[in-house]
Amino acid sequence: MSTVWNSRYALRTLRVKGSTIRELLKLTQRPEIISFGGGLPAPEVFPVKRFEEACHTVLEEHGAEALQYGATEGYEPLREMIAQSMGRYGIVARSENVLITTGSQQALDLIAKLLIDSGDRVLVEAPTYLGALQAFSLYGAQYIPVPLDNDGLCTDQLDKALRLRPKFMYILPNFQNPAGVTLSEERRQELVFLADRYGVPIIEDDPYGQLRYEGEHLPPLVVIDHKTFRRYNELTAGNVLYLSTFSKTLAPGIRLAWIVAPSELISRLVLLKQAADLHTATFNQMVAYEVAKNGFLDQHVKLIRQVYRERRDAMLSALEEFFPSEVTWTRPQGGLFLWATMPEGADCRSMFRSALAENVAFVPGDCFYANDAPEGCRHMRLNFSFSEPQQIREGIRRLSIAVKMQVHRAKRGSLELAGR
Amino acid sequence: MSTVWNSRYALRTLRVKGSTIRELLKLTQRPEIISFGGGLPAPEVFPVKRFEEACHTVLEEHGAEALQYGATEGYEPLREMIAQSMGRYGIVARSENVLITTGSQQALDLIAKLLIDSGDRVLVEAPTYLGALQAFSLYGAQYIPVPLDNDGLCTDQLDKALRLRPKFMYILPNFQNPAGVTLSEERRQELVFLADRYGVPIIEDDPYGQLRYEGEHLPPLVVIDHKTFRRYNELTAGNVLYLSTFSKTLAPGIRLAWIVAPSELISRLVLLKQAADLHTATFNQMVAYEVAKNGFLDQHVKLIRQVYRERRDAMLSALEEFFPSEVTWTRPQGGLFLWATMPEGADCRSMFRSALAENVAFVPGDCFYANDAPEGCRHMRLNFSFSEPQQIREGIRRLSIAVKMQVHRAKRGSLELAGR
Repeated sequence: MSTVWNSRYALRTLRVKGSTIRELLKLTQRPEIISFGGGLPAPEVFPVKRFEEACHTVLEEHGAEALQYGATEGYEPLREMIAQSMGRYGIVARSENVLITTGSQQALDLIAKLLIDSGDRVLVEAPTYLGALQAFSLYGAQYIPVPLDNDGLCTDQLDKALRLRPKFMYILPNFQNPAGVTLSEERRQELVFLADRYGVPIIEDDPYGQLRYEGEHLPPLVVIDHKTFRRYNELTAGNVLYLSTFSKTLAPGIRLAWIVAPSELISRLVLLKQAADLHTATFNQMVAYEVAKNGFLDQHVKLIRQVYRERRDAMLSALEEFFPSEVTWTRPQGGLFLWATMPEGADCRSMFRSALAENVAFVPGDCFYANDAPEGCRHMRLNFSFSEPQQIREGIRRLSIAVKMQVHRAKRGSLELAGR
Repeated sequence: MSTVWNSRYALRTLRVKGSTIRELLKLTQRPEIISFGGGLPAPEVFPVKRFEEACHTVLEEHGAEALQYGATEGYEPLREMIAQSMGRYGIVARSENVLITTGSQQALDLIAKLLIDSGDRVLVEAPTYLGALQAFSLYGAQYIPVPLDNDGLCTDQLDKALRLRPKFMYILPNFQNPAGVTLSEERRQELVFLADRYGVPIIEDDPYGQLRYEGEHLPPLVVIDHKTFRRYNELTAGNVLYLSTFSKTLAPGIRLAWIVAPSELISRLVLLKQAADLHTATFNQMVAYEVAKNGFLDQHVKLIRQVYRERRDAMLSALEEFFPSEVTWTRPQGGLFLWATMPEGADCRSMFRSALAENVAFVPGDCFYANDAPEGCRHMRLNFSFSEPQQIREGIRRLSIAVKMQVHRAKRGSLELAGR
């Protein structure tokens, strides 16, 4: 054993959980398994041909630049394109407000590096994105979880939570991961207002914003912040840092995402990014620019919406058809996930094992709670983007077998409890 | 001003220096400047055509896989290829001993995350790679600098330094950045022996190892460690963690590097990498594999050696021709850099400015010292890989003007000092 190393691990490594979700997902890679577990985009919609052409063009025309070291901030035309695309949300951003990151996960890591001293509190939704918890926890974050309902974060509980003086809030307003719910416009206003009143900044993570299948697009928090407080100074001031990504609209395998923020913050993050990986791959940035340009990305997103809407609908009908009435679920207007809730007393961990026996997989809800909240065990996250509609129906049918067993057990459990 | 953010920066951000080298290098981007400042590979030797073919093959044959999320550890065939290639150094490694990283800079960040608690000491060469100091400092590292001479780290000073109980040592044995010197075989033995005796592990950073232009290849520290202490158990034990990269042999713009280590350590680093960027771009890993395979990389490295040897020789002759006798320089057997030393009293910072006026640039030596050692000001790092031979000659001619002025000033300064 490599004892010379063991004794030398930094204290922060004790905070790294052995990512149970990772271990669970490894079990789901057998081909006979229908997996609602991961958060994978549908590979059928990857614009492979367009990527091929883009690689060809970039290497033919700018080979030396594409394969060379690049600026930490990112490839200038891509930054400009992203800054400009924020205009659709009513945000006036310039390239100096944009930092290209190696996926959104790196954005979360850099933000944690910038803001979290060990012991600092972070206000998070309960449940929330697991990867954010992993990134923040490594820097010693403590959590203030605020529950969600069908309209997103329960803002009526914010006032109390903000008195606990979090360093920042981490919010996924659109088609939340894992819960699939969307923060209502009224609550967005309230959240932004309270953030300003308490002087607590917001990290707005919006990987799925463009993947809306019904209803009206709601303004991002960063826009409401700007409009409410008349921060017209081109993002040089502002209480909200906005994250998005190409992972769900182009492809995750190129690891490209971005942060939009006041330029002073971007300069700080650039220094941290330089120490983290120097810069994001020049080649990937130039290829993504070439793929996305001339309106291709917008066209392509329409196709994705169509495919995913169909899959969401397939999952909703299958749930209606096969799941017992004791189980409820969210009805996401977009994104990749829905969130099912079992009756009290159910244990999604043990259900995960019986589901695997039926060759179907999901992620048990407890993975998504900051403070190991026991209510997590009643939930499951179901991904509907990865499998085709007929597979989804079959998967939900299989899953319903495990679900019914578990509902039965939970009922028996509560009867026994009542009988005592 | 975004005051809501300013007041919330983590303490560690105070440790981030505004990277003077970065600011300096920005000044060197005017086209009329011949820059010996950066550490850029020659773009003329990038295998652009081979990359084009590889992109085509990967997207045609494995498009869906290449654009999808991948395993944090890395693309399995690439890990195997790297594990196998370690065999040329006499290392028996398996893919489980290899972690693919988003450039070597990420490897340094992950290692710092794994090993450094704030206040821990790290033994480094003086001078050493600036990017390592940046990565380590963010986690609160203190430094124990040990000087270099023409045979690399002065191992006669190691015993004393190791008594200060560093958490680990960070060593660049081949064609060191910035000094261009190579650790002699005898000193390698001594270093590995002392590391074992004191129980202090070694991070061996070897980005340039394959770029040797003369002399015999020397065994890496990791090999000496294995052989000396009969650690035959396929890298499951070992006192040395080995880093290398494709940045200097294929292209830096794809951001691909790796760590070779005991598998238990790799598992730990995987958890940290997952929180840092989920995984390195699948597409890049598959393309690099396709480019490197069937012996192409070895062939290509021969070409690079030839081109860089010529450039190194051009710089050495130009230095001989133009520089005054008061200045000395290292004669690197490989790599990208040489290190020139001015007489006492010279100030490379002010020389940097007069060199810019002559349209030539270098990096002042003080950037590469952990504890702002004043001796840094006498040195300059000169890169010879990026410019063509005739440019190198012209650049050194221009630089010699600034050098002579500075030598003159230094002499006058020491005369004045003597006269007092």
